[in-house]
Amino acid sequence: MIQDKNLTMLTDFYEFTMANGYLEKGMGDRRAYFDMFFRRVPDGGGYAVMAGVEQLVHYFENLHFTEDDIEYLRGRGCFSEKFLQYLKDFKFECDVWAVPEGTPIFPGEPIVTVAGPMVQAQFVETMILLTINHQTLIATKASRITRAAKGRTVLEFGSRRAQGYDGAVYGARAAYIGGCQGTACVLADRDYQIPAGGTMAHSWVQMFDTEYEAFRAYAEIYPDNCVFLVDTYNVLRSGVPNAIRVANEVLAPMGIRPKGIRLDSGDIAYLSIKAREMLDAAGYTDMQIMASNSLDEYLVRDLIGQGAQIDSFGIGERLITSKSEPVFGGVYKLVAVENEQHEIIPKIKVSENVEKITTPHFKKPYRFFDKLTGKALGDVLTLHDEVIDEDQPYMLFHPIHTWKKKLVTDYVVKPLQVQLFDKGTRVYDCPPIEEVRQYCSDQINTLWEQILRFENPQTYYVDYSEKLWRVKNELLEAVE
Amino acid sequence: MIQDKNLTMLTDFYEFTMANGYLEKGMGDRRAYFDMFFRRVPDGGGYAVMAGVEQLVHYFENLHFTEDDIEYLRGRGCFSEKFLQYLKDFKFECDVWAVPEGTPIFPGEPIVTVAGPMVQAQFVETMILLTINHQTLIATKASRITRAAKGRTVLEFGSRRAQGYDGAVYGARAAYIGGCQGTACVLADRDYQIPAGGTMAHSWVQMFDTEYEAFRAYAEIYPDNCVFLVDTYNVLRSGVPNAIRVANEVLAPMGIRPKGIRLDSGDIAYLSIKAREMLDAAGYTDMQIMASNSLDEYLVRDLIGQGAQIDSFGIGERLITSKSEPVFGGVYKLVAVENEQHEIIPKIKVSENVEKITTPHFKKPYRFFDKLTGKALGDVLTLHDEVIDEDQPYMLFHPIHTWKKKLVTDYVVKPLQVQLFDKGTRVYDCPPIEEVRQYCSDQINTLWEQILRFENPQTYYVDYSEKLWRVKNELLEAVE
Repeated sequence: MIQDKNLTMLTDFYEFTMANGYLEKGMGDRRAYFDMFFRRVPDGGGYAVMAGVEQLVHYFENLHFTEDDIEYLRGRGCFSEKFLQYLKDFKFECDVWAVPEGTPIFPGEPIVTVAGPMVQAQFVETMILLTINHQTLIATKASRITRAAKGRTVLEFGSRRAQGYDGAVYGARAAYIGGCQGTACVLADRDYQIPAGGTMAHSWVQMFDTEYEAFRAYAEIYPDNCVFLVDTYNVLRSGVPNAIRVANEVLAPMGIRPKGIRLDSGDIAYLSIKAREMLDAAGYTDMQIMASNSLDEYLVRDLIGQGAQIDSFGIGERLITSKSEPVFGGVYKLVAVENEQHEIIPKIKVSENVEKITTPHFKKPYRFFDKLTGKALGDVLTLHDEVIDEDQPYMLFHPIHTWKKKLVTDYVVKPLQVQLFDKGTRVYDCPPIEEVRQYCSDQINTLWEQILRFENPQTYYVDYSEKLWRVKNELLEAVE
Repeated sequence: MIQDKNLTMLTDFYEFTMANGYLEKGMGDRRAYFDMFFRRVPDGGGYAVMAGVEQLVHYFENLHFTEDDIEYLRGRGCFSEKFLQYLKDFKFECDVWAVPEGTPIFPGEPIVTVAGPMVQAQFVETMILLTINHQTLIATKASRITRAAKGRTVLEFGSRRAQGYDGAVYGARAAYIGGCQGTACVLADRDYQIPAGGTMAHSWVQMFDTEYEAFRAYAEIYPDNCVFLVDTYNVLRSGVPNAIRVANEVLAPMGIRPKGIRLDSGDIAYLSIKAREMLDAAGYTDMQIMASNSLDEYLVRDLIGQGAQIDSFGIGERLITSKSEPVFGGVYKLVAVENEQHEIIPKIKVSENVEKITTPHFKKPYRFFDKLTGKALGDVLTLHDEVIDEDQPYMLFHPIHTWKKKLVTDYVVKPLQVQLFDKGTRVYDCPPIEEVRQYCSDQINTLWEQILRFENPQTYYVDYSEKLWRVKNELLEAVE
């Protein structure tokens, strides 16, 4: 399985130069705190969908350096023997927290937090970002597309246009978490239990002398799974009539109903409406119509708006690469360091660009839900040791426009992160993928419609506790 | 190594249903011919850069089905035992040709051709497309960016934003083929000999009480490789002065020159010009300035146009995902089938969209070069058994606007494809990556400037031989 491979060496070179440097300077054991967070939602959306945590867990569990790795590093001529020995004896010792997969996440909040020896907490940066950025990107896109489909089936069909092999497999996995019903990718099914299916390509139809013979041959072999690809020659003049003829001639005598037809080109709205009429007139009201042709959330929405008669969408390149915005810009930043007395010293990274100023300190993020409606009210980042008493009203306030306040009562508050590793030992069982997918759907239902809309959604509240707000402002004042 | 993994099951489910179907219908052994080609160059460019052939060779060599794979397929309940037995005894028997890596390629020409038993030639579709589409996309983008940099160093820095692990590693490989000088990705260096390097992140600077101490510590450990990241606090007020101070205090006494500084935010044009003045004034005219901050070919060109003093560009997300156009739309289409008398019967796929009509038959593509200038004149697709006599003038003509003709003389003609596999046996040695990279640079130099420009390039000629033109037109006439 892909997850068994050791990806320890999949890292930026500077993670090694820094790690060696910390060790050389006697700082390797000092405890550092890092947060992964992101600054904006792709496609101007109101929320993203966390994904990739299971692969991150496998990465941490497999983290070790082989003799070959160490030989390679020695050959680079810039690392100390002490450091190479450290790598040889490497034992992961960090604490790791993350937001569970399938959770809606928002800009500015810590979605992964790592605390541990500086040399280790720094080193894992590249793989945390690579893993979470990729899968979160695709899960978020899948959530948009499946919501646009309004309950119709959406299948992920993009392997051939994915950016590399893992892009296809983990992309299919993330798409499933985000709401797709399945994939065309066999490896994603075999290794990650993402239901895979598929019937025929144009080449199948071309291999036979006629379209009729191609459909007939298919129906004879797969009577229970007949989705005829009807656009190789002419959808309405030959494709649909041949599908009906084969359904009548081959399937009807066996008492089997054909599954449907697939449209892969042309004016999908028009063709689907006409094909629906023809299928219905032939008594095949239960035959489904599947469409697949460079679709995304906007085209799916438009097709439905035009009255297209489509039951199921196959989505390829625009999902598997999140084509309209193919980068999820998560970053991993130092937020605190322990001093020699083991006090946590918060760290801030300032920037002329105020959006790039980080939120300091070892934090714990919470999500507030309205007790009556179950809807999410907002998230609050607190210092790591703060406790919120649900029996007391809580004042939410905007971290910049602090006069924007809201006193909430009758709420339920839940920690946003779960702990994955405790001093390097895994303390978290990744839930089965079906559970993650259901959880995602349930959690998205806790968001107000205003957060969910495609264009100009409301900004979900990600606020600070008063204590955290003070810490940040004191650090900012000190910079001036 | 990543290349050792068996990706046989990384395929679309319909490849299995079709393969099983051909076998069931007694058609499995009939010889079929497929071409991979693409229809347009990403970013409106004039050429793409072929990449991924080496990984494709590994895929074909590793193609086999494990007991687990077969058990998984049996569990799907739709494949015959005869087919499962066939997979168990699977032996790759196809002939495969491809355009060598690093070659400039153009829409409409066969960049991979597979001929073999129908059941096999169909099955390999997904992995051919996935492999070549991905690496060609990134190599093409890298070629654009490195050309924009006009000889300055360009490094690939995008692992953390790549679409999956292979996206990072093979993306770094493809970027190197396309012209980058190196990568930050350690795994790409260890496994694929793409030179990796890197120095420090902002977190290194933040770990120390002051920027000065951070630079000093770095210089003490890595005196020979000092590139100071100068934008953690304030580039001109603290970053550059501290770099100069540490160069004077730590490196100068050792007789070592600092390598440079890196700018990762802010107004790169302005800051680089001011930083250059400061470094020069301090006697460090040889210190290089590296810039990295969401750059691509357009920003690189603009920065240079503004007189930015940058020696080296680090390019992240916009290269590793080809952000402006993250899909390379290669397709794999049936072009011929042998009949029972072993005659090759050309096949065509028509479409209402004329650009989607395929070019039929088993073909051989050639590239014509002007003998005097060495420049590429155009490519010609011929039938597989045509021979071009370089001693005779050759009439190039446009396949649609046939009145556009050009008689060429004094030319050299070279086959565009090399054979990779002969009846399933590898007959091609993949050249070392350095050779591929040099070849790419040399081949791009054979293109006229009009083909190379970023906006509205001339369309490079991809013509048909007269024989091929006739075959295609006869098939089209027969469709009407």
